[in-house]
Amino acid sequence: MDVPATKCDAAVVGRNNRAVTLHGMVHALRDLGGVTFLTLRTREGLVQCVCPRRPEGVREECAVSVSGVLRPEPRAPGGAELAETRFTVLSRPAAPPPVPLSKKSSVSLDTELSLRPVTLRAPRARAVFRIQAAVCRAFREFLQGEGFTEIHTPKLGRAGAEGGSSQFRVDYFGRKAVLAQSPQLYKQVMVGVFERVYEIGPVFRAEKHATQRHLNEYTSLDLEMGFLHSFTDLMALEQGFLRRLVALLRQEYAGELALLGAELPDAEHIPAVRFDEAKRLAAEAYGYAIREPYDLEPEEEQHIGRYAKEVWGSDFVFVTHYPGRKRPFYTMDDPEDPRYTLSFDLLFRGMEITTGGQRIHNYDQQVEKLKALGMEPEDFSGYLLFHKHGAPPHGGLGIGLERLTMQLCGLDNIRRASLFPRDRTRLEP
Amino acid sequence: MDVPATKCDAAVVGRNNRAVTLHGMVHALRDLGGVTFLTLRTREGLVQCVCPRRPEGVREECAVSVSGVLRPEPRAPGGAELAETRFTVLSRPAAPPPVPLSKKSSVSLDTELSLRPVTLRAPRARAVFRIQAAVCRAFREFLQGEGFTEIHTPKLGRAGAEGGSSQFRVDYFGRKAVLAQSPQLYKQVMVGVFERVYEIGPVFRAEKHATQRHLNEYTSLDLEMGFLHSFTDLMALEQGFLRRLVALLRQEYAGELALLGAELPDAEHIPAVRFDEAKRLAAEAYGYAIREPYDLEPEEEQHIGRYAKEVWGSDFVFVTHYPGRKRPFYTMDDPEDPRYTLSFDLLFRGMEITTGGQRIHNYDQQVEKLKALGMEPEDFSGYLLFHKHGAPPHGGLGIGLERLTMQLCGLDNIRRASLFPRDRTRLEP
Repeated sequence: MDVPATKCDAAVVGRNNRAVTLHGMVHALRDLGGVTFLTLRTREGLVQCVCPRRPEGVREECAVSVSGVLRPEPRAPGGAELAETRFTVLSRPAAPPPVPLSKKSSVSLDTELSLRPVTLRAPRARAVFRIQAAVCRAFREFLQGEGFTEIHTPKLGRAGAEGGSSQFRVDYFGRKAVLAQSPQLYKQVMVGVFERVYEIGPVFRAEKHATQRHLNEYTSLDLEMGFLHSFTDLMALEQGFLRRLVALLRQEYAGELALLGAELPDAEHIPAVRFDEAKRLAAEAYGYAIREPYDLEPEEEQHIGRYAKEVWGSDFVFVTHYPGRKRPFYTMDDPEDPRYTLSFDLLFRGMEITTGGQRIHNYDQQVEKLKALGMEPEDFSGYLLFHKHGAPPHGGLGIGLERLTMQLCGLDNIRRASLFPRDRTRLEP
Repeated sequence: MDVPATKCDAAVVGRNNRAVTLHGMVHALRDLGGVTFLTLRTREGLVQCVCPRRPEGVREECAVSVSGVLRPEPRAPGGAELAETRFTVLSRPAAPPPVPLSKKSSVSLDTELSLRPVTLRAPRARAVFRIQAAVCRAFREFLQGEGFTEIHTPKLGRAGAEGGSSQFRVDYFGRKAVLAQSPQLYKQVMVGVFERVYEIGPVFRAEKHATQRHLNEYTSLDLEMGFLHSFTDLMALEQGFLRRLVALLRQEYAGELALLGAELPDAEHIPAVRFDEAKRLAAEAYGYAIREPYDLEPEEEQHIGRYAKEVWGSDFVFVTHYPGRKRPFYTMDDPEDPRYTLSFDLLFRGMEITTGGQRIHNYDQQVEKLKALGMEPEDFSGYLLFHKHGAPPHGGLGIGLERLTMQLCGLDNIRRASLFPRDRTRLEP
């Protein structure tokens, strides 16, 4: 009995000594003691095929269909190998791979990214983006269970409203438009419609960074919810998502994690510490002076992350009550000390992956805040319809998908967590 | 016993004569025979609350928390109403709604869109976007079951490769970039990595349309798969998705469909007809002359849709084998008649909602095709790495989310199927 050609290693293991037909790309060919081992790269993983000799006309990165008999082989990936194989070549490459795909490659990151259409085929790269897809799946499934509605907000908007220097400018039929830095204002507005909303989509930042942790286009996991009791509701919600994610990865992505040598974090207990306290604790523990009392520099995030790991045993730490001067115009001040705000970041292994907090919902208060910051309420007239015509207490958060992926997979550069990264110099492939 | 404040009408019906606490926005207030009926708009629906008198300080679009006792009331939405109510006002609007939200509004579409942050709160608008979210959910759940991996491809790219006039131009740190018209080239490349991929994301078209069926930014449901046997595999896959969608809407969205007066289509049997045959059948049936033998005009799509409904009893019809001259450079010609291609559109109630087909996978063939069309293979060097280093036979399709939503909901203008539509004149809110 033939197994449908769409199934591969995981599905195949239970069918030992059965005739199957698989399809995939020829990942590797190895002649060994009068036998040829051919590794087939299928949709889900690698399958070892044994052939008495090198099959006619088959070479690396051929697309093939292969029939054979599956038999137990503890040394093969998935615990089985395909024997008595018959190959049909469906397509042939015009040239061999420019870098080895079945062995660890030593090319530079720059070369790897330039050859991305091919280098993504390597198992380690595939594992990263399988895990990235799992992050999105866990986010959606968790939020759907919590009564959130998915939304799609525009990425093109009128120029002028928000901080211009970090926005890309677009020629929109002769008018000036900009690309959205975040769905922030729209997701707030949508709280008035659905109470709980989320969006996974691209955001665009025209920032002149050239670091290991910044991209000029990235994917943001955004949510916003009404009828908050406290901004800590948002932290509890994010923790719920992270637990769901860790459980999903543990259950279904053990192979990818093992390949990457990635260790799952523990999201069961996440400590929370005030901004000023976090700075003080880390500075005291690691013996440095605090340079900038109102901001966290990347090195300081690393120190706080290290402190959370060493002292509290946690890969995650919520840093709460950021100073108002570093938070945007819609942020709710802490009524108990208006120098600080009802907001938080989540650090994961020493890197900020989330910013969130409660927002202003009162119309007059939001108008006053804009004026106090030297901004024009008139520029926000569409957004302010939300506050003017009734906004519940609300808040939300945004998670950088590539940063979360990078930290989960233990990558050294965020570009490895983006299929086709965009930075100051890179616009292709 | 209190029900958590996050539950509302559907959940509430089973809990008659129980004490509950709900929260939401005050949708409507009506004094009637010494009693006040207050309609609460919760996350999931409307709940009727009965009060002996108008509650102090409560008006439309206040955010409130309300405690009371649920009791059966067949005339109320959800079959129950909340009595013995006690209200807590959580926030108040600064001004009453600019248009009525609880009655059918007679404002123009233009006014409705300008006031979108408020007009989206009306139950009919909410129903449209709940259904839209269901479309995305069905698409993902179906494809996940079919072994597809979700991807995120860049929306910013280098200028110059594809047709320039329909692309928006972006200033990218002093370089010229463009916004993606489609994830087409990236999703093909990703077939070499994961074999089956999908993406839901924004696409941008700088086309100077001003019709009921075009937007300049819309959401595209894209998929691409390797190891096709025929382009009809893609049609079968799309039909599988549509069946899943119809089943989901029938099970969980009956209320939204009823509110919109929308009838679910039957996706069990979808006829397929060749392009030239479809044109001929409709022209003969409705007595008009074919003006343009190589293209389908919108009126002709309507005629073919009408024919499919009247003669085959179907809301859907696949139109196959489009002429090559109207299909893009990656389209696979029909080997049996190279004037035509292995491609299709899906019409739904007389409107094209999908374009799909098999692609060229052979490197030399793709290079030749580019040259024959006067395009520079050099401009596509990143994309062509896919073909050069091994591409399986493959194909895919793209579905316009707003068009599918529009036709499902029976809307007269695609702008009603976009939360914050972008057209030639509209960049806000």
